[in-house]
Amino acid sequence: MTAGTLKVAPSLRLSRRSQAARGQAISFLMQQAVENPQVISLAAGLVDPATLPIPETHAAVERILGDPAAARMALQYGTTEGSERLRRLLCRYVARLEGATPETCGLSPDRLLVTTGSQQMLSLVCEVLLDPGDICLVAGPSYFVFLGTLEGVGAEAVSVPTDAEGLDTDRLEETLAALDAVGRLERVKLIYVVSDFDNPAGLSLSTERRHALVEIARRWSRSHRIYILEDAAYRELRYDGPVHPSIWGCDDSGGEWVIYTQTFSKTFSPGLRVGFGIVPPVLHKALCARKGNEDFGSANFNQHLLANVLESELYAAHVEQVCAAYRIKRDAMLEAAEEHFAGIPGVSWVRPHGGLYVWMSLPETVQTGFDSPLFREAVHQQGVIYVPGELCFAGPVEERPRQHMRLSFGVQTPEGIREGMQRLARAVKRVLQVHG
Amino acid sequence: MTAGTLKVAPSLRLSRRSQAARGQAISFLMQQAVENPQVISLAAGLVDPATLPIPETHAAVERILGDPAAARMALQYGTTEGSERLRRLLCRYVARLEGATPETCGLSPDRLLVTTGSQQMLSLVCEVLLDPGDICLVAGPSYFVFLGTLEGVGAEAVSVPTDAEGLDTDRLEETLAALDAVGRLERVKLIYVVSDFDNPAGLSLSTERRHALVEIARRWSRSHRIYILEDAAYRELRYDGPVHPSIWGCDDSGGEWVIYTQTFSKTFSPGLRVGFGIVPPVLHKALCARKGNEDFGSANFNQHLLANVLESELYAAHVEQVCAAYRIKRDAMLEAAEEHFAGIPGVSWVRPHGGLYVWMSLPETVQTGFDSPLFREAVHQQGVIYVPGELCFAGPVEERPRQHMRLSFGVQTPEGIREGMQRLARAVKRVLQVHG
Repeated sequence: MTAGTLKVAPSLRLSRRSQAARGQAISFLMQQAVENPQVISLAAGLVDPATLPIPETHAAVERILGDPAAARMALQYGTTEGSERLRRLLCRYVARLEGATPETCGLSPDRLLVTTGSQQMLSLVCEVLLDPGDICLVAGPSYFVFLGTLEGVGAEAVSVPTDAEGLDTDRLEETLAALDAVGRLERVKLIYVVSDFDNPAGLSLSTERRHALVEIARRWSRSHRIYILEDAAYRELRYDGPVHPSIWGCDDSGGEWVIYTQTFSKTFSPGLRVGFGIVPPVLHKALCARKGNEDFGSANFNQHLLANVLESELYAAHVEQVCAAYRIKRDAMLEAAEEHFAGIPGVSWVRPHGGLYVWMSLPETVQTGFDSPLFREAVHQQGVIYVPGELCFAGPVEERPRQHMRLSFGVQTPEGIREGMQRLARAVKRVLQVHG
Repeated sequence: MTAGTLKVAPSLRLSRRSQAARGQAISFLMQQAVENPQVISLAAGLVDPATLPIPETHAAVERILGDPAAARMALQYGTTEGSERLRRLLCRYVARLEGATPETCGLSPDRLLVTTGSQQMLSLVCEVLLDPGDICLVAGPSYFVFLGTLEGVGAEAVSVPTDAEGLDTDRLEETLAALDAVGRLERVKLIYVVSDFDNPAGLSLSTERRHALVEIARRWSRSHRIYILEDAAYRELRYDGPVHPSIWGCDDSGGEWVIYTQTFSKTFSPGLRVGFGIVPPVLHKALCARKGNEDFGSANFNQHLLANVLESELYAAHVEQVCAAYRIKRDAMLEAAEEHFAGIPGVSWVRPHGGLYVWMSLPETVQTGFDSPLFREAVHQQGVIYVPGELCFAGPVEERPRQHMRLSFGVQTPEGIREGMQRLARAVKRVLQVHG
């Protein structure tokens, strides 16, 4: 047998699912960043390296490894649903965010599932609920990684327009009615919402709309349940503006209609990959069974570590620091936008109260995609990279809005942000001169 | 809206996949252990708590967190395929196990994928290769969690008999020929083998058979590639007997036919959940895309931690300690088997050279399943629990061999093992008296 034999070897045959799945666009963005190291990235969704919790992690690890019994627990296998101690602490943690106690909001550890970041929770929900051809309603724009996950299970994302209060619930009703009219309501299984300071648009759903969403999900659940999948990844990254209860907290049936997910990647450390979900009891078993097949449990050590962090006062103090740092960077980005973009006709942007992103809209004549003159000008001439807004919409690319950009203030320093915004404004002006 | 409204709420509709998946039997076993705390578990696949690497983990964490740059790298997001530094170290590590260098065995980091334990790697391979109705050939008996994973993607496991040298390659050929004769060769995509000290039977594939397996996979790959999925989870838990190259190492095409998986759960710490796969280049992209949708990367912190452990001499020394401890426990179980079971007619067992399990066979009249008199007698009267062998076979339960038990010497102390074996022998004798 020689390597030559391989030339006539029969071909690889992937599963239908894998044939249909495209790679995440994020890979292309990362490649661009690697190949153009002088480029300032306003694209990366990484967290600010300066905020990473080195002493906090150190203290928690010492507490675990300094106690042989605790160390052995943490280094042993855990369970598929996750550490009971952590799940108990998470009940208290979420209840506190709702301004309640676990008892008053009906939270108990058996409603929780600990996952590898909240992404795994989002993926598990798709696996367990969606068949190929099923529909998930999403905000337009929406979190582009989640759109890829939907595609990975063969489901269809249908966009619902947003306004300044987030996903427009009147338009959601219209969309449901339109799907019903063509006999497709049967296929609607999920409504996905990033409730606070969303990715990519930085918008938060008003409290009124949170209540409306639950009511709509209940009312339109005719032959089967339509769940709301609430992604609260940015909930604690709040810099000003109103505080809202979660959609989950607005569901007065005790959370029968809402699947809630959150992660400690943004507020603590993405390197630990600890996320979790709160799920209706009827779904818990199916999600655990699916996770059992996928990995039978996320890293137990990290769960014990995070339990120690949550139990101490280190967590709350750290979140305050993180928010203070990001507030400065958000302000730097908004000031730079004012300085460099305010003079360009047809350019506007959202002023977010939290999160990591500023969503900027250009005149409709200017496309922002990977193949656009603007993207090339920005990356190769001016040295700045962003996430093209068209990645954040569902449907055929020609039919999507194509003039938006997602700008992240997460990774760069305030100086880097100012420099990046200046470069980006130069790129936009150049393209408007040539193509506008 | 009141809780009463829920009574008329429409029903949950799970995806077809989730409707078809059963929960892993391991949940029932864990529940039995929790509800009967006086029971000695010879069922649990946990590792020996006394071997867990507390000082080694401590040293590695100190090295990371003591260096701010290293700490920030470890606490930040990683990549979907895993830390490049760890993948480079894993190349050296696997090459050393093969008695080679990464260069001579054609190993480079772009062939590797770091996963949440090897279970996630097994699951990803199933996702990417198998459609509902596709076939995976497995040893009979085989690792029961993997059988559940196959079921979770709607694939069919077809058992191939084993003998003292592991999966019988002549019978494998017969099975392939039989499937071909009924037009089902088209559906065969995978051959799954635990190559060393397998779970559950403790058998290792002879070197000759490893070569034969690769040759068979190539020869029967007519319209498409049939891959060998090699699970080397127990490879380093060797107490005596011959050393074999991996099946991957026997594939002289440069690993085009073998997907190799290994984990540090058994030799280091299951709480870190670091496993990995070496995959043919054509599969790497599809596996990364799938993992991107599932969790976009396993915990980066743990990968940095393990990289530090592998880079130091701590790892090799720890594996030696672990093997020394398990060798004593394996001997305790074999001696106790000799003492308590040798006098029972029709009872036999495998003497494993490594791993964590002794596979015991009872007279055919004695069933060992969850509903059997023996299981009830063992758990409720004698206070000992084991894994029923019937869980480890594919096909309808009535057609499976039902008189085997998987006995683990991983968790109990030598004293616990002796006591557990004595209890189990009493249960077997009791059942033989009544039902034999």
